[in-house]
Amino acid sequence: MESTVGIGILGAGTVGSALIQRLVDDHVAIAAKTGLDFSVRRVAVRDLGKARAFEVPDGVLTDDPWLVVNDPEVMLVVEVMGGRDRAGDLVFAALEAGKPVVTANKELVASRGLELVAAAERSGVPLLFEAAVGGGIPIIRPLSETLAGEPVERVMGIVNGTTNFILSRMAEDGAEYGEALAEAQALGYAEPDPTADVSGADAAAKASILASLAFGAWVGVDDVYYEGIEDLSPIDMAFASEFGYAIKLLAVAERSAAGISARVHPVLLPVDHPLAAIRGATNAVFIEGESVGELLFSGPGAGGAPTATAVLGDVIDAARGVLAGAEVAPRIRFSPAELIRFDDVATKWYVRLEVEDRPGVLAEIAGAFGDSGVSIKSVWQEGAGDEALLLIVTHRAAEADQRAAVEAIAKLDPVRQVASVLRVESEEA
Amino acid sequence: MESTVGIGILGAGTVGSALIQRLVDDHVAIAAKTGLDFSVRRVAVRDLGKARAFEVPDGVLTDDPWLVVNDPEVMLVVEVMGGRDRAGDLVFAALEAGKPVVTANKELVASRGLELVAAAERSGVPLLFEAAVGGGIPIIRPLSETLAGEPVERVMGIVNGTTNFILSRMAEDGAEYGEALAEAQALGYAEPDPTADVSGADAAAKASILASLAFGAWVGVDDVYYEGIEDLSPIDMAFASEFGYAIKLLAVAERSAAGISARVHPVLLPVDHPLAAIRGATNAVFIEGESVGELLFSGPGAGGAPTATAVLGDVIDAARGVLAGAEVAPRIRFSPAELIRFDDVATKWYVRLEVEDRPGVLAEIAGAFGDSGVSIKSVWQEGAGDEALLLIVTHRAAEADQRAAVEAIAKLDPVRQVASVLRVESEEA
Repeated sequence: MESTVGIGILGAGTVGSALIQRLVDDHVAIAAKTGLDFSVRRVAVRDLGKARAFEVPDGVLTDDPWLVVNDPEVMLVVEVMGGRDRAGDLVFAALEAGKPVVTANKELVASRGLELVAAAERSGVPLLFEAAVGGGIPIIRPLSETLAGEPVERVMGIVNGTTNFILSRMAEDGAEYGEALAEAQALGYAEPDPTADVSGADAAAKASILASLAFGAWVGVDDVYYEGIEDLSPIDMAFASEFGYAIKLLAVAERSAAGISARVHPVLLPVDHPLAAIRGATNAVFIEGESVGELLFSGPGAGGAPTATAVLGDVIDAARGVLAGAEVAPRIRFSPAELIRFDDVATKWYVRLEVEDRPGVLAEIAGAFGDSGVSIKSVWQEGAGDEALLLIVTHRAAEADQRAAVEAIAKLDPVRQVASVLRVESEEA
Repeated sequence: MESTVGIGILGAGTVGSALIQRLVDDHVAIAAKTGLDFSVRRVAVRDLGKARAFEVPDGVLTDDPWLVVNDPEVMLVVEVMGGRDRAGDLVFAALEAGKPVVTANKELVASRGLELVAAAERSGVPLLFEAAVGGGIPIIRPLSETLAGEPVERVMGIVNGTTNFILSRMAEDGAEYGEALAEAQALGYAEPDPTADVSGADAAAKASILASLAFGAWVGVDDVYYEGIEDLSPIDMAFASEFGYAIKLLAVAERSAAGISARVHPVLLPVDHPLAAIRGATNAVFIEGESVGELLFSGPGAGGAPTATAVLGDVIDAARGVLAGAEVAPRIRFSPAELIRFDDVATKWYVRLEVEDRPGVLAEIAGAFGDSGVSIKSVWQEGAGDEALLLIVTHRAAEADQRAAVEAIAKLDPVRQVASVLRVESEEA
């Protein structure tokens, strides 16, 4: 009892090609396991002349993506072309036409998710995007379905493999940022223009999606504060390690009594935290819930084959709905989010200061922190004389207060330089 | 636009009570997040007179579970009473009556899953059991949905918290098995009668479910070979640690060209394997797929609150289907499994022998291994004279051959005793 499901695919890059190969090569195995007979009807590509790793019958390839969306034999649309505007218009049109959509496009979901989810709900078809966060790691479905009734408190994720690879090299080999980046580029983990990854922008789109699903409230990408890893120094990697921390670029989505926040920045994380052990290009998501406790998911966060697995899982899921012929009850609902401004988010700071090595310096600095309402948890002096450094970790305080304190400290006479500032994530206040 | 969904619950033990509390206490939050208005209509308990942690209106509690299943206001049945026969008959009847069922009962699913899945398919209603493996960890849905199109090769899980707690105590404190068990009992991690956990039977039921979902082929609990941890000695824990291994009780489901196998037994696992780091009562499942690579899921594997989270996720999922009013396309299909007999499964063995310390002993032992077609990977002598021990690790060979080799060795003159035998899971052949 196999039923044919015509698939249209927008984009045949790394993920699209891997998906098409799977749909062709594993056709029999997938049919045996799921009862679904998939047929790739239309594939939109940019360049019809380019050599492809997959084989499809004549007439399947087109350079007009609207032919894919509008083809009456296409019952289900897969969007793996990327980008915001054109991809969004195509996805929107497919949903309006009553076709389920599977997308791997985090940028699209994080920017236009609210209207797309609404369009899917109006048409009674699914919009699925398991591959948008964490590549092959099942995270969207667990978060939006298994944990649908869970009061999730916090989600923290290593959701960008490029930056985690770079940070791992810096931590393990003492490499400078530039060296580690060059190595990541040579190995294909980083793009020739690495900005989207190293600036934290890619992770910010994923933080938006994780926050929206975890709290059932829409947190768009423009609501996510982000910082990248470009300014990280091997000196801070070494100090972090000496004091029992790893430095990781984390996406953090939090809910407190005051509201919801989502942010991306490097953090000092205690080495015994499960995320501290995630090395190289691996991704991981750590979820803390009031009832469920702590959950960790890890695996390959990118790459054609793993990401195609996530897309294929969504395709199978959506196809079952298509064949059942019924309107699909929406699995995702977003209520308006009560967002906390980033200035009001409470974090702990690590501050490295180059200071004059003389009595009274610490008192002045501690005074400046205190004047801004920030209290100091620990202070450590490294070196002496002209080389004197103070490493300070504060207790939790609002971002705006931390920033005000550091600005005041930078102006103090015995402070030569605020050499670096990083946030710390740990259990204590 | 909230729609009332009447729920019937079979059993109000740890999980049932936690679920009812959540449905009552979080009623508003769940409705806001999902649009579903749950109403607990009927709860079957063994003892109507017992004090309860939850409050339900008069007339909701009953000691007749059939009243729950047959109540026309019960649109969805949750089975958390446990057991095989009575629970099975009730679940079967609910499905036949067209009511979706959510169950946390691994024993039931592992023994009667095939007929229950068929009954659900006939009625076009979902049968969901996320809580049956790994408590609060989302694992059933990722495996059966996100990875529906993945050629899964192997699933290995720490799926019994009691035994992992005991093994962690033995490894970290050098405790004897009996001491560690007593401590687990004192802390509530082990039952007064711990047999189901320590014998591996509980993990075997979970191995059956994991194997069936991973490979889309029915592997019943009677097809799962299992051994427990009762005979583990601190001596082997210490040697394992010395040679870079942790000892864990693993559920292993594997697919090879020859077929599918599922088994539960203690194994020596390299310390750098992600599962080796899972401590205490935590559960974790490690999945290896041809395309997706390696995935790890970890979290609390038991306990009322985490398990209730998984049940609640299924309840929300099933309720969406009920309200959509459509027949639900089955998400799980089982084809007949081509099973490998356990005798034919290839594993590596660790063997500890008490031997006479004289020339030629190793040659005799190596000869006996060779005669059975087993080749030795490494040999280590510990102690000397009357205390002489040989620690042998073999290459991969069929279980039957490994057993024949050890039986032959036990009869050799210079072999005083085959002190212990354990399996080794590592990458190499």
